[in-house]
Amino acid sequence: MSPSGSTGQSSTENENQSAAASSPRSSFASSGQGMAERYSRQMLFAPIGPAGQGKLLQARAAIVGMGALGTVLASHLVRAGVGFVRLIDRDFVEPSNLQRQLLYDEIDAEQSVPKAIAAAKRLAAANSGVDIEPRVADVHPGNAEELLADVDVILDGSDNYAVRYLINDVAVKHGIPWVYGGAVSSRGTTATIIPGETPCLACLFGAAPPRGSTDTCDTIGVIGPVVSVVASYQATEALKLLVGDYERISRSIVHLDLWNNQHSSIDSRGMRKPDCPACALKQFDHLHAEDSGEWIESLCGRDSVQIVPKQSAKLDLSAWAERFKPLGRVELNPFLLKFHIDEDMRLVLFADGRVLIQGTDDLTTAKSLYSRYIGM
Amino acid sequence: MSPSGSTGQSSTENENQSAAASSPRSSFASSGQGMAERYSRQMLFAPIGPAGQGKLLQARAAIVGMGALGTVLASHLVRAGVGFVRLIDRDFVEPSNLQRQLLYDEIDAEQSVPKAIAAAKRLAAANSGVDIEPRVADVHPGNAEELLADVDVILDGSDNYAVRYLINDVAVKHGIPWVYGGAVSSRGTTATIIPGETPCLACLFGAAPPRGSTDTCDTIGVIGPVVSVVASYQATEALKLLVGDYERISRSIVHLDLWNNQHSSIDSRGMRKPDCPACALKQFDHLHAEDSGEWIESLCGRDSVQIVPKQSAKLDLSAWAERFKPLGRVELNPFLLKFHIDEDMRLVLFADGRVLIQGTDDLTTAKSLYSRYIGM
Repeated sequence: MSPSGSTGQSSTENENQSAAASSPRSSFASSGQGMAERYSRQMLFAPIGPAGQGKLLQARAAIVGMGALGTVLASHLVRAGVGFVRLIDRDFVEPSNLQRQLLYDEIDAEQSVPKAIAAAKRLAAANSGVDIEPRVADVHPGNAEELLADVDVILDGSDNYAVRYLINDVAVKHGIPWVYGGAVSSRGTTATIIPGETPCLACLFGAAPPRGSTDTCDTIGVIGPVVSVVASYQATEALKLLVGDYERISRSIVHLDLWNNQHSSIDSRGMRKPDCPACALKQFDHLHAEDSGEWIESLCGRDSVQIVPKQSAKLDLSAWAERFKPLGRVELNPFLLKFHIDEDMRLVLFADGRVLIQGTDDLTTAKSLYSRYIGM
Repeated sequence: MSPSGSTGQSSTENENQSAAASSPRSSFASSGQGMAERYSRQMLFAPIGPAGQGKLLQARAAIVGMGALGTVLASHLVRAGVGFVRLIDRDFVEPSNLQRQLLYDEIDAEQSVPKAIAAAKRLAAANSGVDIEPRVADVHPGNAEELLADVDVILDGSDNYAVRYLINDVAVKHGIPWVYGGAVSSRGTTATIIPGETPCLACLFGAAPPRGSTDTCDTIGVIGPVVSVVASYQATEALKLLVGDYERISRSIVHLDLWNNQHSSIDSRGMRKPDCPACALKQFDHLHAEDSGEWIESLCGRDSVQIVPKQSAKLDLSAWAERFKPLGRVELNPFLLKFHIDEDMRLVLFADGRVLIQGTDDLTTAKSLYSRYIGM
């Protein structure tokens, strides 16, 4: 992977929306002198140095989730010159994101731009020398290995444990280090996981908590700065991993609470479980979860239900827009279509066939609307 | 100050470059419903809540320095809805900034846009409901009170102790809380100072260290994430101060080193000095420093000398460009003029008469070039 390649690498996968991420090339971006100047303060930092910078330029990273954590993770990695960065997110920008998701503007919210696309465009303007690959996709058992198994490090910017345990399965199966991060209220947690060496997520936290059983930003709120702190800890760990400074990798679970001035660090070196279903028994239950029919879930605290068809499609959104227009107000952009079912409910259809029903958290209601309007 | 006022408030001071920060207004930015949605996750956070959000919308903040700390500070404050935010910086964007200064793009570096202007423009797009005032200015004894004495909190995003001790004098004299922050290498430090209640900077650290005696990002480097962590601690302290949650204000000096997994917190409650020249004796030596003739200083590690004339001017940069053109290559933008003296040396002239001589750290050489080309 060339570190000076163009942004938005093309792909055969229909979830890839690379075209929108193109940007004018900078005159100094890809020249040797420009590189040296751009990264000069980071190369002066002895644990990276010119050799470490060379490794970063050749490295590949995937970030799962481009919300508050993901936007900070992506900013740090792209600006540090990590050669290839894949940005994965299933959502589009909404007004409530702007308080803490540092890459998005009002215009992104007004136009409902998918987060991966908006982030890739912003970051390409900051560093045209990095190959940025936006993916508008929900990470699920059917696509997790395709999205995550070809990189050197995986960064967790997600907001739920279902996805984190899936990341953990892929990471352990393929021997890829990853960095867990979570933030809610003014509290945050992070841990670095090196398969075969450190405890994995299942060693540290046991079985995944049931959906809806944990606090989220949508239920008890969050302040922007705590998310930046957690993501910055994660990004530092990623830099250590990518330059190969394994001695300095954190061997602890770090907890912090910024509003209450608390910071604690729990040594996790003795926590590997000999019977861990993931890293000891290699069962990979989350990766092998039966994927029968569509995948339907209520998005906790967000008054929305997501329905992912078993087979990813490639829809002609314009044709779908024509179909919906007689029935109500329709908004269309190159990545998604919004159909206003009534005052309170909206149906959002993505080009890969994924649907959000907004305005309900009832699975039966959502499924019934899905059948009525999409019928596939 | 109306929180829904336009960005780039006008001013009689010639350092204010407000026009460049204007941006298209968003349809939802200033509506009540848009506000509620935009700040919903922050209002769900109980220590802020709707009442705290109301206070933030009425609050005024000044940020000194729009480098790595300042860009993160400004992002958090503007996105959180702090009603008025003044962004003060004397520099323009350069390629070496892009690795860690999260608001700037390649195009800003190519066009040498002043940091305050570039930051204000970016943040106005993120939140058009905040009144953002960019000031292209060096903070010195002659302008410090005009720049800093009319706000509710001052955030330190500077990179040198001369400016920090000046902030401390203004803050103590006018009873304004401020938050100190510093980051270099992978280390950071922060402390919150409430005049009359906590120790001030001079209590904590004694006399200002001589210029050039401390490590800087330009001499030993820095990684981006540590700066984000420090600025995020500072921004959280600012939010506590502005919503009035004084019980939760940090009463410690916080030190951290991200690469080496270190975090420490030193209780500073007993550190007020009964003979402190600033907060006990109210001498304000830094604010009253004799300002005779021009102010000339070598910018440590940056191979540059800055010369600030005693009287701020209002130059016609186009006329100056015409004058320099026969002598060498000239670049001009609305805020500054760059004249290439030769291959290795450049003279940068700002509209207020301030000059940077780049390519030397020798005061005599710089002063001689200043006399030859500017002659005032």
